[in-house]
Amino acid sequence: MRIKLIIEYDGTNFCGWQYQPGLRTVQSELESAIEKLTGEKSRVTASGRTDAGVHALGQTAHFDTNKDLGEKYAGALNYYLPPDIRIIRAEKTSEDFHARFSAKNKTYKYVIYEAQTDSAILRGRAVRVGYRLNVRAMNAAARSFFGKNDFSAFMSAGSETVTTVRTVTDISVKRKDGLIIISVSADGFLYNMVRKIAAALIKAGRGALDGDGIKELLCKGAVFTPVAPPEGLYLYKVEYKI
Amino acid sequence: MRIKLIIEYDGTNFCGWQYQPGLRTVQSELESAIEKLTGEKSRVTASGRTDAGVHALGQTAHFDTNKDLGEKYAGALNYYLPPDIRIIRAEKTSEDFHARFSAKNKTYKYVIYEAQTDSAILRGRAVRVGYRLNVRAMNAAARSFFGKNDFSAFMSAGSETVTTVRTVTDISVKRKDGLIIISVSADGFLYNMVRKIAAALIKAGRGALDGDGIKELLCKGAVFTPVAPPEGLYLYKVEYKI
Repeated sequence: MRIKLIIEYDGTNFCGWQYQPGLRTVQSELESAIEKLTGEKSRVTASGRTDAGVHALGQTAHFDTNKDLGEKYAGALNYYLPPDIRIIRAEKTSEDFHARFSAKNKTYKYVIYEAQTDSAILRGRAVRVGYRLNVRAMNAAARSFFGKNDFSAFMSAGSETVTTVRTVTDISVKRKDGLIIISVSADGFLYNMVRKIAAALIKAGRGALDGDGIKELLCKGAVFTPVAPPEGLYLYKVEYKI
Repeated sequence: MRIKLIIEYDGTNFCGWQYQPGLRTVQSELESAIEKLTGEKSRVTASGRTDAGVHALGQTAHFDTNKDLGEKYAGALNYYLPPDIRIIRAEKTSEDFHARFSAKNKTYKYVIYEAQTDSAILRGRAVRVGYRLNVRAMNAAARSFFGKNDFSAFMSAGSETVTTVRTVTDISVKRKDGLIIISVSADGFLYNMVRKIAAALIKAGRGALDGDGIKELLCKGAVFTPVAPPEGLYLYKVEYKI
């Protein structure tokens, strides 16, 4: 049977999601916890990889097993997992469900704070900018990303993808309790797409780029090189067709 | 000359504020950074100690030096300090200023979240309760702590103090972005006083204690044994007479 997992992790001390021999990755920790619990070697498939330092509040994954623990997989796996990975929910799902291919929409958040000095508390959880950001200008610029666009200017080499067209279904920038939070939803994301969008919106926030500039970048398709740092990025949720 | 420091730290990987031979403490790290920078062995005096795991956003401390760097101490010390301690501000101050004895008022925050599972992201930064808290009841109960009271029921052995009377100048409980934040200001705090107040208010939030019960505890002075965990506690700010 197939088990669906909703996973939260602090990406700080992981070399990203994907298995790499000898390195501490989220996938390896999960597969090792499943083996300890079930005695079976299972492959865990996520909605997508995340890079080193990137966090998740709602990463979604699946694996196949013969052991019918259903919802109890959450508590049982948490027993074997390190505290920087937590299974928020587990459930038996259909064999047709695929964490990557059944995904309909994904939401990421990018968290920024404005300060002259790095914060000891926010270290690893948010990205510092040393100047005041204009959130209104960031929102205005963000509208240029909305809808169906060719995002080839906003990807890095390494995207496993046939097409570079994606549909941004929601994008907003909010100031909240001293943090600035960029929220982006799309039917899919190219490699580094959110971190490049975040870098563009930070630029917009200090008046160095606007909506027209972003539209021009999208049209031309020439690579927008800035990439905002990984530690501000959170995979917030993944929505499914089934 | 005397230098005043405003310090932020993530208490997770420290054995508290105070110097203890062979252990990683905030005081040791600061004194070692000052020695590296100035070549002088200085003693750093804080507004008060914090325990292992307790954080600070606005701890305040002073030290004496012959090196006149003024405000530049912030950047210069941050160069030598580990990333889990940051000097937010440094300034030359009067020889009469004493980080502990000149303190007029201190504010602590205590951060709680409600969830069935520990959070990987909030781990070490907030305390989980597995049930829904009634914030209105917590606020109602909190009013019993307000004002001048003998807090001997809300301290642990180890308070360096002559009197156990303290004046709570402000206390409130707020729900904010999925977190519950208790904020307490007083002219001074006994050892574990905030963590015992937090434990009492959590109890009030699940209906197991109310304002009258707290008043009775304060009057009787018999020790209230519950102590909320350190990782939810933040020393938020210290206000001074001078």
